[in-house]
Amino acid sequence: MPKVAPTILTLTTDFGTDDFYVGTMKGSMLRHCPGSSLIDITHAVPRHDVLFGAIMLERAIAAFPPGTIHLAVVDPGVGTSRRMVIARWPGLGQTAVCPDNGLLTWAWRRHGPAEVWELSWRPARASSVFHGRDIMGPAAAMLAAGTPIEQIAERVDDPILLDVAPLSDVGQSGEIIHIDRFGNATTNVTQELSASIASVSVAGKDVGPVRRTYGDVATGEPLALIGSSGLVEIAVREGSAAEVFSLQVGDVVELLARRL
Amino acid sequence: MPKVAPTILTLTTDFGTDDFYVGTMKGSMLRHCPGSSLIDITHAVPRHDVLFGAIMLERAIAAFPPGTIHLAVVDPGVGTSRRMVIARWPGLGQTAVCPDNGLLTWAWRRHGPAEVWELSWRPARASSVFHGRDIMGPAAAMLAAGTPIEQIAERVDDPILLDVAPLSDVGQSGEIIHIDRFGNATTNVTQELSASIASVSVAGKDVGPVRRTYGDVATGEPLALIGSSGLVEIAVREGSAAEVFSLQVGDVVELLARRL
Amino acid sequence: MPKVAPTILTLTTDFGTDDFYVGTMKGSMLRHCPGSSLIDITHAVPRHDVLFGAIMLERAIAAFPPGTIHLAVVDPGVGTSRRMVIARWPGLGQTAVCPDNGLLTWAWRRHGPAEVWELSWRPARASSVFHGRDIMGPAAAMLAAGTPIEQIAERVDDPILLDVAPLSDVGQSGEIIHIDRFGNATTNVTQELSASIASVSVAGKDVGPVRRTYGDVATGEPLALIGSSGLVEIAVREGSAAEVFSLQVGDVVELLARRL
Repeated sequence: MPKVAPTILTLTTDFGTDDFYVGTMKGSMLRHCPGSSLIDITHAVPRHDVLFGAIMLERAIAAFPPGTIHLAVVDPGVGTSRRMVIARWPGLGQTAVCPDNGLLTWAWRRHGPAEVWELSWRPARASSVFHGRDIMGPAAAMLAAGTPIEQIAERVDDPILLDVAPLSDVGQSGEIIHIDRFGNATTNVTQELSASIASVSVAGKDVGPVRRTYGDVATGEPLALIGSSGLVEIAVREGSAAEVFSLQVGDVVELLARRL
Repeated sequence: MPKVAPTILTLTTDFGTDDFYVGTMKGSMLRHCPGSSLIDITHAVPRHDVLFGAIMLERAIAAFPPGTIHLAVVDPGVGTSRRMVIARWPGLGQTAVCPDNGLLTWAWRRHGPAEVWELSWRPARASSVFHGRDIMGPAAAMLAAGTPIEQIAERVDDPILLDVAPLSDVGQSGEIIHIDRFGNATTNVTQELSASIASVSVAGKDVGPVRRTYGDVATGEPLALIGSSGLVEIAVREGSAAEVFSLQVGDVVELLARRL
Repeated sequence: MPKVAPTILTLTTDFGTDDFYVGTMKGSMLRHCPGSSLIDITHAVPRHDVLFGAIMLERAIAAFPPGTIHLAVVDPGVGTSRRMVIARWPGLGQTAVCPDNGLLTWAWRRHGPAEVWELSWRPARASSVFHGRDIMGPAAAMLAAGTPIEQIAERVDDPILLDVAPLSDVGQSGEIIHIDRFGNATTNVTQELSASIASVSVAGKDVGPVRRTYGDVATGEPLALIGSSGLVEIAVREGSAAEVFSLQVGDVVELLARRL
């Protein structure tokens, strides 16, 4: 192993992997940070789905070692005057680069407010349709290579955040914020609240208390459990909760509070 | 190039790449082995298909240079009491980390028995639904970083193996063990047996002797040939044998022995 | 970061990522160039679609820093007597390794003629169906590790090129050369010609002049604009031009020249 580990950059986009977009963005980045390590989170964010991207970005920020730079490009506003931002969580040692359209939301809600800068650096020439390759990717790579944020960005304090947050009170309704490809539905109900929940209902169906693991119900049965994100998930053992209950992001999740 | 090449870790899972699962597992691993090189084999193992995963793992073990650590996570039993294991083939310099559910089978059959340990290391906190990220990934990464196996695992001698093996006698029937996305059907008939085979039948259709290459038959015609795994494959030139013959894993392959 | 950045190898294939093919090719490569950095461009080239592959390869050559080695394997002729080639653009510092079947075409048209060698190196043993893993991958890796081209290949001057080229005159018709997964249709009309174009028609429909960005038309409206490749693209804002106009590669693009 090299004496000093290379800086890690993660990538989250809605580009897909069928075409050259991700590959050429990586080439453009590696011009600025030779030797860095590029790790894909996913490139299958549904096109222009900022909330989906925001959840991916939060997961990346939670998973990687301090010093990681996270690039997230879900960018319906490319070519308009929307800002591009850099966010830093000094306590976590994590930095994100993305368009200012709400992609920071879920990391902000779960890890607290970040210090935010507007990216002011621009290359000599940039395509008006691919700022991931020409502006944000290189900027993330410059940060990975040690460029100080202040040299390429200016402090701001009003990043765009979406209207979604972890549930703070077991007396309120929760909602589904994400559905994965197995049909597991992640809610905004946190692990910390789960001890106060007697049972969870979704789509008018009671799926019982929050269990520990899939094995706590029979195959084919629904359950609520703490998912790997530390949030309550609605699942079906060896099945798809999204299919069984026709679930969608935004659906209400009713909680019955435990009597104290 | 760095003076000493970084340790390589390969990853084989059924997580898909649409969500954050693979990316966050890599983040968790890189905390334990900064600077290591992570290479995806595939994340498209059909959900819970242990035999498919076992064939991927064997191919990875055959392909990579000595010193590689292979992580395979196809884990229907996550959260139950199933063991997690480390297997080492000292002669090959290859090490695998996986749940103990049969994933070692095909490497064991083709490369011989491995030395096996039960992984006893546990982190302070682990999700009960994502042992790839929280237990097996970090364990593989620790091995990559030089932790001795004995420090995180205990020797056992009874890994679970599936009931599938290379054919040892041309007088017996073979079977289809894998179908790739091009519709090529891999059998359990080895290259070594092929010289003794006069012709191969599948789904009641004689596809002739074992040929050298696709070019030995006309476009659209079926054939048997030695695939890149060193096993006899049933293929259709520029077509899909799986579609043409409605083939499935487990289907019988009849062999007509060459008269000596 | 290591003092000297590792050599970068890019990979473009039609193997898909559902099976072990890409992973095992990487293992085979890393035996020859430990410590190199392997970057995927795409493995979703439609099976045997050489033009699609050629466009991906050109994009990779345009994007990566000098010194990069590009491996492209779309190889319908594997196992026949087709040549394998190495192409080098000394002015760009870029090198490609691929079967000699037209994959060099688009890079040749856009970046000029390359120096070409026929790969003569062969391993002791090679599968007749997987030259990416056994011949071209290792050859690309040897170049990455510093092996001189002359040691593994012999100079030739007649690579196979497809009959497609950037349009040189605004008085001629253009054509669609590529459609991406968003339904954007790339034409062979270059950025340089666009200033001379009054309007663009495709499938009998006038989509107006060449615009700067999606924001220049209303949502759902078609437009022509300069894509990230520096070529005119036919797009629909937040929609799919390929669907709206039933476009296919090879379709004619009519140009109305600006009156001077």
